[in-house]
Amino acid sequence: MIFVALIHFPVLNRKGEVINSAVTNLDMHDIARAARTYGVHGYYVATPLEDQQKLAADLAGHWLKGIGGEKNPDRKNALGIIRIVNDIEEVIQDIEAQTGRSPEIYATSAVKRGNCITWQAMRERVQSDGEQPFLILFGTASGLADEALAMADGVICPISGPSPYNHLSVRSAASITLDRLAGI
Amino acid sequence: MIFVALIHFPVLNRKGEVINSAVTNLDMHDIARAARTYGVHGYYVATPLEDQQKLAADLAGHWLKGIGGEKNPDRKNALGIIRIVNDIEEVIQDIEAQTGRSPEIYATSAVKRGNCITWQAMRERVQSDGEQPFLILFGTASGLADEALAMADGVICPISGPSPYNHLSVRSAASITLDRLAGI
Repeated sequence: MIFVALIHFPVLNRKGEVINSAVTNLDMHDIARAARTYGVHGYYVATPLEDQQKLAADLAGHWLKGIGGEKNPDRKNALGIIRIVNDIEEVIQDIEAQTGRSPEIYATSAVKRGNCITWQAMRERVQSDGEQPFLILFGTASGLADEALAMADGVICPISGPSPYNHLSVRSAASITLDRLAGI
Repeated sequence: MIFVALIHFPVLNRKGEVINSAVTNLDMHDIARAARTYGVHGYYVATPLEDQQKLAADLAGHWLKGIGGEKNPDRKNALGIIRIVNDIEEVIQDIEAQTGRSPEIYATSAVKRGNCITWQAMRERVQSDGEQPFLILFGTASGLADEALAMADGVICPISGPSPYNHLSVRSAASITLDRLAGI
């Protein structure tokens, strides 16, 4: 069982400082649609800021309760997977309440770390135990801060292609991650 | 050699009618960043509408010539891969001028067709001949219209996960496609 969380705090800015990033409409939509495609059990949008939580709820609500959902039921279906939460602790509690098990937590990063988990190992792990929840963390802005990485059981190796360029959007990175873990 | 084209005409709306779709900022950014990551040789944004071509040029120009590029050189590097063109014919001519060979053209679709090309076959084909240009077409809105599909040598099978839901954003679909063809 895969769960994903899009983290808006604590994340880094381009200078490496810890910041709160802003919730964006397309991060919610694109990742919700990918999550539905790949059978993800929950997509958490995590921000501790009340105004950002309200913004996220309004953006989702347009499609869930408003005219958007009537016009586009596929989008309504996708956005229904989103849960807006304060932080990673709240994500863990919610997964425990839903599944009765503590999630194994894996962070994603565009920076290669020596002991990173390979994609093949990660896919095998996720596919080998259908009852175990796996929580994959994605950082907005310039990626997860150390305090967020420290909550993970491991960090997955960066997504890579033949070029050294490694600046995928978080929407692309999340989509590719789900395809690598659960694509057919 | 992979080239990608994001097609804004002829594409379908939700009712299946042929339309011109609007250029969007994030389609340009996300796909350019994925294209750079996966070593794509050119990313064409195709629209026959002059005002849309101007919008696309302005969006890219902010990062290429304006203050955006100074603040974020990685983004400038990514957007430099974009060429704004009228249509698929112009894409083909440009690739022929650059490479001296006619591209093999493959369309993408969320709808499964009987004779679609599997991902494994497509990846092997792309990786087997480093000199041959391959052009991958992505449709905006609800996907490529028949007139665009008819220009392709084949249609790649839909991206799929364990769920029947098949409404990825074109940004996600393009990112996953490039990962499937050129990911490491």
